Amino acid sequence: MAKFERIRFKPIPVRELLLEMKNLSELMIDLAYSAALFNDRELAEDVLALESRIDTLAYLLDMEVMVAARGDPRDAEALIGVTKVASSTDKISDAAADIAAIVTRGIGVHPIVGAIFEKVEERLAKVTVYESAWVKGKQLKSLDLARLGVDVIAIRRNKAWLIDPDESERVLVGDTLITRGTPLGIKEFKNVAERKA
Amino acid sequence: MAKFERIRFKPIPVRELLLEMKNLSELMIDLAYSAALFNDRELAEDVLALESRIDTLAYLLDMEVMVAARGDPRDAEALIGVTKVASSTDKISDAAADIAAIVTRGIGVHPIVGAIFEKVEERLAKVTVYESAWVKGKQLKSLDLARLGVDVIAIRRNKAWLIDPDESERVLVGDTLITRGTPLGIKEFKNVAERKA
Repeated sequence: MAKFERIRFKPIPVRELLLEMKNLSELMIDLAYSAALFNDRELAEDVLALESRIDTLAYLLDMEVMVAARGDPRDAEALIGVTKVASSTDKISDAAADIAAIVTRGIGVHPIVGAIFEKVEERLAKVTVYESAWVKGKQLKSLDLARLGVDVIAIRRNKAWLIDPDESERVLVGDTLITRGTPLGIKEFKNVAERKA
Repeated sequence: MAKFERIRFKPIPVRELLLEMKNLSELMIDLAYSAALFNDRELAEDVLALESRIDTLAYLLDMEVMVAARGDPRDAEALIGVTKVASSTDKISDAAADIAAIVTRGIGVHPIVGAIFEKVEERLAKVTVYESAWVKGKQLKSLDLARLGVDVIAIRRNKAWLIDPDESERVLVGDTLITRGTPLGIKEFKNVAERKA
């Protein structure tokens, strides 16, 4: 069932790896809760794919840190906090995958689970960008997000995730924007984003 | 070092237990990142205390679910998703405690770790309510939080945590408000909250 991939050392800066792991793990929690709340199989599968991505990043980071320590005990001591944070983000991503698996395995979301996730719905929304949407082709910074109190925390473009996108990023047709904010801001943004041009 | 407490069955609704576990685990991640970023021992110790609280809640929830299943396989099947979510929040809280332990054990936060947490600082702030503060004695709903795009996600009052406080909750002298929002909103709220009456 699982595909195994030989992980080879690649010189990617530790900071980049760690930042991506942290951002992905946080996104995964929100996505997993949303998947459970809406019994959304597609979202749940996204979470499982991200979990596998984090596993790969964790291997790369561990190798990178070993190399960075250069055989020096003092360097190893300085870097141990980095590996600790990395393994923690890995644990968080495993937990998110466990929640997503409730959906992919058809375990069924008990009403109690739905009830406790209702607050997630209030502060997280998926906005899909259609051909006719007003936001199409616009940069994030021109969408008045700060005033609404809304963050676009991720963009799903084709099969890839763009985490914490830059303000200058343009929204494309077919993108799914994962947004977070106050209930009011989210509602207003959804109205604006899905308004026809 | 650790205090052991005999956990006894208490009839607390499963939904309440699960909601508290979920809310606490999410708060713990933010607090742990903040503790690591600011090398804040007090926050780190709060995280460790919350981890122990979640352990207790997890035991209570497991017992509660066993009782709720009433020896019926169909009830057990319906409830298995609940225990899965509970064990996931427990994993998340363990991960947060691992991050906090970097601070309490004096492992030292490598600059790389600080750098990746800088974004946390932007969206999370601790606001302490002093005797002379304008917000003192006011209800949360009168603080114009929706307009600023700021959520008070928790109030630390004496040694207790009030998670996701009600809009009618009044802010008291000595409270620490943990707020989340956009960088702009957070900044404006800090200005307002710490303004003298």
